[in-house]
Amino acid sequence: MANKSNADERRKHIVRKAAALFDKMGYFNTSMDDIAEAVGLRKPTLYYYISSKEEILYLIHEEFINHLISNHQSRLETRMNRSQLLQEVMIDILDQIAQFPGYVRAFFDHYRELSGDMKEQIKNKRDTYFRMIVDVIREGKEQGEFETDDPSLTTLAFFGMCNWAYQWYEADGKRKPREIAFHFWDIFMRGISTVENR
Amino acid sequence: MANKSNADERRKHIVRKAAALFDKMGYFNTSMDDIAEAVGLRKPTLYYYISSKEEILYLIHEEFINHLISNHQSRLETRMNRSQLLQEVMIDILDQIAQFPGYVRAFFDHYRELSGDMKEQIKNKRDTYFRMIVDVIREGKEQGEFETDDPSLTTLAFFGMCNWAYQWYEADGKRKPREIAFHFWDIFMRGISTVENR
Repeated sequence: MANKSNADERRKHIVRKAAALFDKMGYFNTSMDDIAEAVGLRKPTLYYYISSKEEILYLIHEEFINHLISNHQSRLETRMNRSQLLQEVMIDILDQIAQFPGYVRAFFDHYRELSGDMKEQIKNKRDTYFRMIVDVIREGKEQGEFETDDPSLTTLAFFGMCNWAYQWYEADGKRKPREIAFHFWDIFMRGISTVENR
Repeated sequence: MANKSNADERRKHIVRKAAALFDKMGYFNTSMDDIAEAVGLRKPTLYYYISSKEEILYLIHEEFINHLISNHQSRLETRMNRSQLLQEVMIDILDQIAQFPGYVRAFFDHYRELSGDMKEQIKNKRDTYFRMIVDVIREGKEQGEFETDDPSLTTLAFFGMCNWAYQWYEADGKRKPREIAFHFWDIFMRGISTVENR
């Protein structure tokens, strides 16, 4: 049997192929048979690596949110200012939407299909990431950079702008992900900055 | 047999019940049997009013977008200024999310499930509504009220903020739909207004 790192690689490959199928055919319309065919495995072999379609959905969620959290954490360790931190978060999200539409769609449209422990774990990570951005905004308010009477609600506006792009972003559109992120960041920053900080 | 207006009423009732079911069980998991049971009709009678689940989805989309378009049109006929127009659009959307979560979820999550003529018609109406808001922003730019180098992209930021609420809005949350709309509108307006117009 394959060793652990080979098995991990194989699982990643299966998840990527499945995400592309979900994006093309829809999560509900994609069967484990379709996934087995797409990765060139017989079904029993597929089940050796992955126990269910829900587990694939979980792995998609996990990879996506881990990526966002670890990117933000690395940046927190640099001397980047809050305005730049927010810009980079928007770029991260737009980049993911552009590069991995299947992941993003599964993450946003099918979160409700996760259950039990898998749902719990993803919920905790989503909450962690959300609070990381609330913290940036709350600290900016405390330092007199940003104006807001409700940093959580302001964070929901922030995520709304960029997350929503998964509904309309087109790979052949005239704007690159970074340009879109910059446009949104500019509106958002002018929208929340105190007069001295505009 | 029922006369036309009774049949229309009956169809509306079916659509409302179905939207609530879609919201609770998911569009894919809801069958015409479930819908028949929820409205207290036998299946042949249900099929007299509604030809398919997709038709219900279409009617949900149509009612939702017609409501938004006609509200905005009525306001255009008043002397409301552009900033107020944008505020009212945000209130409309947050109100719909709060009052009719099943409609909104169907509208955003299951647009892709519409096909053929039904899809075409809804697409045209969605485009019409989108362009109506782009027009408000473009005219504001031309009048020196708003700053933007891309009114369409700015409109996508605008809709992102409020539409995204369908993913997180909770009926028992501490903020009323209007408060949320006002918070977002405030960020957006400060984000796009020229210095003289802040």
